[in-house]
Amino acid sequence: MEIAEFFPVWGELTKTEQDELLTNAVKKTVPAGVLIHDSNEECEGLILVTDGMLRAFITSPEGREVTLYRILPGQICLFSASCILRDIHFDITVQTEKETAYYLIPSHKFKRLSENSLVISRYINEIMSARFSDVMWLLEQIMWQSMDKRLAGFLLEEASLEGTDKLIITHEKIASHLGTAREVVTRILKYFAGEGLIELKRGEVDIIDRMSLEDLTL
Amino acid sequence: MEIAEFFPVWGELTKTEQDELLTNAVKKTVPAGVLIHDSNEECEGLILVTDGMLRAFITSPEGREVTLYRILPGQICLFSASCILRDIHFDITVQTEKETAYYLIPSHKFKRLSENSLVISRYINEIMSARFSDVMWLLEQIMWQSMDKRLAGFLLEEASLEGTDKLIITHEKIASHLGTAREVVTRILKYFAGEGLIELKRGEVDIIDRMSLEDLTL
Repeated sequence: MEIAEFFPVWGELTKTEQDELLTNAVKKTVPAGVLIHDSNEECEGLILVTDGMLRAFITSPEGREVTLYRILPGQICLFSASCILRDIHFDITVQTEKETAYYLIPSHKFKRLSENSLVISRYINEIMSARFSDVMWLLEQIMWQSMDKRLAGFLLEEASLEGTDKLIITHEKIASHLGTAREVVTRILKYFAGEGLIELKRGEVDIIDRMSLEDLTL
Repeated sequence: MEIAEFFPVWGELTKTEQDELLTNAVKKTVPAGVLIHDSNEECEGLILVTDGMLRAFITSPEGREVTLYRILPGQICLFSASCILRDIHFDITVQTEKETAYYLIPSHKFKRLSENSLVISRYINEIMSARFSDVMWLLEQIMWQSMDKRLAGFLLEEASLEGTDKLIITHEKIASHLGTAREVVTRILKYFAGEGLIELKRGEVDIIDRMSLEDLTL
């Protein structure tokens, strides 16, 4: 079964633990744009992405969003199982960015595994460290970087994730990733276009001068 | 020995693990204002505070600081042992806020314990979750709250930590906690003073109208 290839510490688990995962993991495929975890929902469980992409973000009281990190194939979404983690006092929302296939390991099943397996407990440490590092990176960006640097970095990251320099994305969507207003994004994109770094089309941003965009992020 | 009272999961450890901690923990007392961990230093080890207070913060390339969280007696500083955590890719600085006594458990000793003990591994998960929650709270404050709300919240938190409404603190120091410029702090404090919420003296901020300050943070 595919889960054995995707679950990162599979080889270190006991046969019993492997069987428990195989028995309880549910395969799901969800179209783009669906909320698969939010603060109002129940704590469903651990999500192991096998195809597609998830986005984890937080939302202000006024509905403004900022992206915390993306979850790619082979990666795990831990916070959809946050009820099994003690001392987690925050809510994040997780949404499919494109059609996404994943295994869901229900919280109460995963809880038992994590409480009894040193391998799984240490693996949770690793995931949490990686996500913590993502959020610290974001915090530093927000504290110390100007929005034009962050926007240049976002365009390059998006191009790398999508494997193309022709990005199909609205200004509104970019604003939701960066936690700012659409007007701010439009103003900076127009400035970038004026400098010949990008070309703006309807619902599309084309990267023209990658080198100069990279220089901007330094 | 005192460490048994302060180490949070002591009772769940095996006799061997307890002995290993007792043998390797070094008691230290450090005056106020000393850096006990920064990005250039070695990874010393796990710090268990028994008296005083530590401050964990990050610093911008230009030297501006922002406080991530404080570490109080009975709490553990995990990131001074960050080398034992895989996938931690950020640096924080830890400084004594006042004279502080702590136990230091050297990294290489603690690494062995954490790799072999389910209790310790799960406890590391808990500490990391709590710190992650602190940083998420800060991120939300920075993203969605105005500086006057954050400053009102900081004064109330400081009063609670110090057990007094007469805070001996400079505007410069407050700015370093909040990651802003001294001028911004001075401007807001003067506004608060004008509204009768606080009284400003040299090197001192006295809280006069606690209720109104609390209202401001909502």
